[in-house]
Amino acid sequence: QGTRDHPPAQAALRERLLSAVVSCFKRHGAAAIDTPVLELRETLMGKYGEDTKLIYELQDQGGELLALRYDLTVPFARYLAMNKVTTMKRYHVAKVYRRDNPATSRGRYREFYQCDFDIAGQFDPMIPDAECLKIVHEILSDLQLGDFLIKVNDRRILNGVFAVCGVPESKFIPACSTVDKLDKVPWEDVRSEMVGEKGLSPEAADGIGEYVQLHGGLELIERLLQDPKLSQNKLAKEGLGDMKLLFEYLTLFGITGKISFDLSLARGLDYYTGVIFEAVLLQQENEHVEEPLSVGSVAGGGRYDGLVGMFDPKGRKVPCVGVSIGIERIFSILEQRLEASGKKLRTTETQVLVATPQKHLLAARLKLISELWDAGVKAEMLYKKDPKLLKQLQYCEAMGIPLAAIVGEQELADGVVKLRDVATREEVRM
Amino acid sequence: QGTRDHPPAQAALRERLLSAVVSCFKRHGAAAIDTPVLELRETLMGKYGEDTKLIYELQDQGGELLALRYDLTVPFARYLAMNKVTTMKRYHVAKVYRRDNPATSRGRYREFYQCDFDIAGQFDPMIPDAECLKIVHEILSDLQLGDFLIKVNDRRILNGVFAVCGVPESKFIPACSTVDKLDKVPWEDVRSEMVGEKGLSPEAADGIGEYVQLHGGLELIERLLQDPKLSQNKLAKEGLGDMKLLFEYLTLFGITGKISFDLSLARGLDYYTGVIFEAVLLQQENEHVEEPLSVGSVAGGGRYDGLVGMFDPKGRKVPCVGVSIGIERIFSILEQRLEASGKKLRTTETQVLVATPQKHLLAARLKLISELWDAGVKAEMLYKKDPKLLKQLQYCEAMGIPLAAIVGEQELADGVVKLRDVATREEVRM
Repeated sequence: QGTRDHPPAQAALRERLLSAVVSCFKRHGAAAIDTPVLELRETLMGKYGEDTKLIYELQDQGGELLALRYDLTVPFARYLAMNKVTTMKRYHVAKVYRRDNPATSRGRYREFYQCDFDIAGQFDPMIPDAECLKIVHEILSDLQLGDFLIKVNDRRILNGVFAVCGVPESKFIPACSTVDKLDKVPWEDVRSEMVGEKGLSPEAADGIGEYVQLHGGLELIERLLQDPKLSQNKLAKEGLGDMKLLFEYLTLFGITGKISFDLSLARGLDYYTGVIFEAVLLQQENEHVEEPLSVGSVAGGGRYDGLVGMFDPKGRKVPCVGVSIGIERIFSILEQRLEASGKKLRTTETQVLVATPQKHLLAARLKLISELWDAGVKAEMLYKKDPKLLKQLQYCEAMGIPLAAIVGEQELADGVVKLRDVATREEVRM
Repeated sequence: QGTRDHPPAQAALRERLLSAVVSCFKRHGAAAIDTPVLELRETLMGKYGEDTKLIYELQDQGGELLALRYDLTVPFARYLAMNKVTTMKRYHVAKVYRRDNPATSRGRYREFYQCDFDIAGQFDPMIPDAECLKIVHEILSDLQLGDFLIKVNDRRILNGVFAVCGVPESKFIPACSTVDKLDKVPWEDVRSEMVGEKGLSPEAADGIGEYVQLHGGLELIERLLQDPKLSQNKLAKEGLGDMKLLFEYLTLFGITGKISFDLSLARGLDYYTGVIFEAVLLQQENEHVEEPLSVGSVAGGGRYDGLVGMFDPKGRKVPCVGVSIGIERIFSILEQRLEASGKKLRTTETQVLVATPQKHLLAARLKLISELWDAGVKAEMLYKKDPKLLKQLQYCEAMGIPLAAIVGEQELADGVVKLRDVATREEVRM
């Protein structure tokens, strides 16, 4: 349940998609690493908050207690700590596992690919963070998924907002997860969850509401830096200062047009400590809609400066920032688009079919195809002693093979091969 | 235990190795498929004989009872049956899981890659089988692993041998697994296991011994086809006839020089029904050794015509033949060889480092690198506001980055970039 086989057409589309993402990661100088699908259970415990219950555990068959990885970030942090690596730019494309309620039509599975790019190390502020956003921008542009928006916020700014609105620190995390729902439900509902379920005072909720409904660019950052309440909060000030720096760098990259500083962005995971971001695709239903409709998150990430230290016996920290591309949702979109276009993706790369027009020529086919393979040519033949020429040409058409190399008795006698362009039926003897 | 992280140097070597194998599979017109790491437990039960105890099972957390796949062949057969696919040429490169005793120095792990190529479908005899052997030959030649030998046998011939030597059919499988040890221990030990542990009569064992110590080529096949006992056995005769056909095709491919028809080859798995084969690397200790020393199997496979039927409710059979490349052992060999050579493999593909020779030029670097990325150039910069030029050039040397694009005050004023070849120190302004 919640898993799927990928038949050739899907596997081919997925390969193209993953290779586009990986080539962007390589363009930014990342090295690949690989970690086991299995992790010690204790490695995963206490990292995912409430979602810990979604971890697949292995049966105790003697030996270590194991679980399937839930994401690629925790294994990366474990890897850095275990190997005492303090600087690294890496990507990792691999499957992760979650015992979630699958919603396969929306691309939500229990086994799915993650494509992560992370930069670990102590550097000058916001330079790696800006690169992560540049990567999201490049990938979403390259894939031509349509218009998109990258929302950016900072956990320190959010916590500052909670603090100046009078929320006690113990309620920062619940308040945060409530704010996170603002992209799906209106403020009134978020407010009533804050006051009801989460036990915030109505005044605090109203105060938060004034901030978290704000979004904009540099001018909003400047305004909040002058905000009489927020500017008094140390964390918020730090976060806003870094946000300003980030926008300067994004301006140099020329991508601020698709970036929105959005105070409602919270992100679910506990381990973020600074900048957080999330990319959403926008759907313009028609030209007259004022607010473009969001069709869901396709990338996300942020800074997590404390996670590696959780795996180090001495608690030594390695600051990290990273991005995860939501490849499954993008895959669903591309698949639907391909289906709607009526186009078929080739599932093989065969360049030429070796064919014979008469009987008793299997030996000639085997000799020729062997020469082609040895010369690096992608070649196929039908696994029949005496196939009909028509069947052989139909196979080319069905599989999209552009050329047929035909050896008949005449060609054998003349020491040539007849090369036929399957689509145009043009033939040359060579 | 028995798993490992792949740091960048290993991941880069593995990527090269896998891409060499996959490009051979694609050259032969195979399509990719992907199946989940998780399979239903019942799918895996009864397929691996004694090795069933090595299967990793998942904890019962409610819902289906799951296990981690043990190989890629059973999931492929399950896929074919489930989707009623009767013809397919596919490859699959993915990790499999075995709770075996790890021997990591010899490349034996509990989580490891398999690279499989299989041809499913009803075809004229031995054409797909010959292609599988051609693939093994191509891959082992491409990878330049040194001299190798591909041993070939047929389960029908082995069973015929057992039958004509008076072994009861119930003891074919135990006799087969004893014969399989002939590549590691001398015939005397195999014989005593047959007579002792497996309860064969001494006469039967001696009879088997006369056959299974034979190996050769076409002339041996011809001789056995005339063998007074063996030629009376229907199965053996079929197997020998197909073996003769196989050798004809392999002769057309020009690869019989590395193929040995070896009656001691048995292979462990239960599901083989026809041709079986295994490739071993040969180590010529010195010129005067007469028999080359085998350093272990690096590829294997065979025909399994009954496996798909086990997953079909009506038992409909789909004949299959396939090969699995022992990528982990090859990886170990290449890794040791690389280490011995003292060479370092690049872990990234970065073409150019964007560098500045003076302070306060971060903005210039960010602008230039952004242009390079947008133009598809693989580029990096140090994540520091004001790095020293020497540090930047040292980074190029450490990472093998061939070029540095330098923008200083003078270059900015002139509207040019200074491109420096890191190795030769040659510079051009452009």
